Amino acid sequence: MTLTAVSVDERLRLAKDAAREVGLLDSATKTAMLNAIADAIEAASADIVAANADDLARGRDADIGEALLDRLRLDAGRVAGLAAAVRDVAELPDPVGRVLDRRTLPNGLALEKVAVPFGVVGSIYEARPNVTVDIAALALRSGNAVVLRGGSAAQSSNAALVEVMRRALERQAVSPEAIQTVDDFGRDGARALMNARGLVDVLVPRGSAALIETVVTQSTVPVIETGAGVVHVYLDATARADWAREIVLNAKTQRPSVCNAVETVLVHRDAADRLLPDLLGSLAAAGVRVHGDETVAAYDPRVVAATEEDWAAEYLSLDLAVRVVDDLDTALDHIRRYSTHHTESIITDDEASASRFLAEVDSAVVLVNASTRFTDGGEFGFGAEVGISTQKLHARGPMGLAELTSTKWLGRGDGQVRA
Amino acid sequence: MTLTAVSVDERLRLAKDAAREVGLLDSATKTAMLNAIADAIEAASADIVAANADDLARGRDADIGEALLDRLRLDAGRVAGLAAAVRDVAELPDPVGRVLDRRTLPNGLALEKVAVPFGVVGSIYEARPNVTVDIAALALRSGNAVVLRGGSAAQSSNAALVEVMRRALERQAVSPEAIQTVDDFGRDGARALMNARGLVDVLVPRGSAALIETVVTQSTVPVIETGAGVVHVYLDATARADWAREIVLNAKTQRPSVCNAVETVLVHRDAADRLLPDLLGSLAAAGVRVHGDETVAAYDPRVVAATEEDWAAEYLSLDLAVRVVDDLDTALDHIRRYSTHHTESIITDDEASASRFLAEVDSAVVLVNASTRFTDGGEFGFGAEVGISTQKLHARGPMGLAELTSTKWLGRGDGQVRA
Repeated sequence: MTLTAVSVDERLRLAKDAAREVGLLDSATKTAMLNAIADAIEAASADIVAANADDLARGRDADIGEALLDRLRLDAGRVAGLAAAVRDVAELPDPVGRVLDRRTLPNGLALEKVAVPFGVVGSIYEARPNVTVDIAALALRSGNAVVLRGGSAAQSSNAALVEVMRRALERQAVSPEAIQTVDDFGRDGARALMNARGLVDVLVPRGSAALIETVVTQSTVPVIETGAGVVHVYLDATARADWAREIVLNAKTQRPSVCNAVETVLVHRDAADRLLPDLLGSLAAAGVRVHGDETVAAYDPRVVAATEEDWAAEYLSLDLAVRVVDDLDTALDHIRRYSTHHTESIITDDEASASRFLAEVDSAVVLVNASTRFTDGGEFGFGAEVGISTQKLHARGPMGLAELTSTKWLGRGDGQVRA
Repeated sequence: MTLTAVSVDERLRLAKDAAREVGLLDSATKTAMLNAIADAIEAASADIVAANADDLARGRDADIGEALLDRLRLDAGRVAGLAAAVRDVAELPDPVGRVLDRRTLPNGLALEKVAVPFGVVGSIYEARPNVTVDIAALALRSGNAVVLRGGSAAQSSNAALVEVMRRALERQAVSPEAIQTVDDFGRDGARALMNARGLVDVLVPRGSAALIETVVTQSTVPVIETGAGVVHVYLDATARADWAREIVLNAKTQRPSVCNAVETVLVHRDAADRLLPDLLGSLAAAGVRVHGDETVAAYDPRVVAATEEDWAAEYLSLDLAVRVVDDLDTALDHIRRYSTHHTESIITDDEASASRFLAEVDSAVVLVNASTRFTDGGEFGFGAEVGISTQKLHARGPMGLAELTSTKWLGRGDGQVRA
């Protein structure tokens, strides 16, 4: 169904009205609705790929580079992947209606705290058309309407996907206004979304650190900050050599471009002789460029001298900062200073060090003897991932469907008044 | 201990450092620390009352009015009350360390989601010195440092209270920097607090709707919005007359100045003849001025004609808006339009109406056959109340100590890497 509303404000109001309807749907109806969306996406594959070709052509003209073009690209296989992801979300347990607390007051008033949809979920993201479908599916599964603002480079793809999804809702006799986009309003659309207090219940930015910073600092609607990862692995004095090597290699090289990849390794001075020669050799063999302090550089001529910028860098590449520290306290100080509070891991055989690290590191996920790559909604068993929250309000760490719900207290009495 | 730091920023940094220390204290130490604060407040009663006298004198010179002077006033009895409140908080269960989720991944990595302190809790509030002590006690009990910004009218009282509490911390060998004020920086202090991203983890405004709106729209740090209450009671067609009368009277008159007092009563047209004459008579007898629509006015000459402003009014006084509606749908529409999403109650004997009301009203607390005055941390059995959240992120409804904590995932492995 073509978008009909003429102003951003009107679209947001339509979303709010539709949210009431979607919020009351039962689980089976929401499953059917999402499966219908998946079917519609597959059926419209050729149209979606054609719309995407327009975006790709504009992208090539604007010289956005091969990496961005690849993120933007949709072919029949990727469109089928989008549909499959929606089917996966359709089968996830419904987070709405769970009873989270229950108490009966001395006067007999029976109270229940239940999970309810937020209402309208907004998202501002970059030129990845898959996010359009992912966020819409997650929002609908959790009983919310959604207002999307994708990157302008993906505008044609997003418009095609939104239209297909809205048509599918309509065929399921659900208001198509539950899926809205403000892409066609450009920056004004984003600005309206960030300031739609009373119309948008929560805004989830997804993308670069710069995008997230803009949304967090400019929004007056509540934001869940998903974030950057300057992630640390600390090799304690007693770290096992094989675990140290395998965990650092896995955390750095298994998928270097994601937020849970390690960016800095700290090594206890007493373990440097034992661990560094082997570790630096393995990293070099895996194609990793090490940016090290002077102590580290003394072990291997391939080490590049680290500067202050390296300790704060989220490389998202086969680069790694390595520093030798005097003790656990120095490691904790370093992490406190440079961490983005995403994930840190200690490799140690010393229970006292492990306990202090778990207690004192102020991050969403703190691990002992495991790779930082486990910070992920899929790995945690959530079935889906909205993002990874690096803030402390509402949600922290991987966010699944439950994190797209709020709560409501329901009370049933028989005439109780307050004494 | 006198405040030493020279800049707002430095005070916030000291608070952040102290938060690490307070966050690691065990429950017994926190209890002892709070009891020491209570003792110190009682011991310094004369000094606190003397400081308060300065504020009262300035308040009288500035002609702030008797109601505000009364809120500002501290005498020996009220100071004892402050100390008693701190002792109550000292005995509440420690919310830190509760295990909220637990899962072991197929590879054996054991994960726990535990409650942890936010770190630094900020609060911006008005000229009520009791809030200075309440918020400090609640923040410390939940393992947080606190940065306070009270109303300038209470500046001398707050300075005295903060100094007494800081000295008590020092005598307990806890860093006094865990309690900070930015009162002496005036508006700059508030502005710094609202924009201290990375230093302040959450900001809780308490006070008027205007204050809360300012904090919500101007802050870049996460805010928990506590809010205004345009609270509704809906008398359905089948409402019992005695429950209708007693609940409306209790919700309006038991304490009219608070946010959970009812401000608008909606009456189903079919119940108007049966309920309104008795209800309007009882309200008049209790000194309540009814602002009614034409149908309501026809029942009683004392009814004042309601205007559009009345439907949106948070009177906080012995005024009440009353409207007759055609049916439940009209009542729900009215509530959707004018409610501040705090608390609404339906009085009904019809289970279908009760269920629809519970499901469709989008408020923090939705009640059937009970007074709206029950929306309160004390009544809910939380032991303490930080405020009542009318937003949907993180906390909704009455907030106790648990709502001053965030979470952290802790994982223990034995060398797990991601496949």
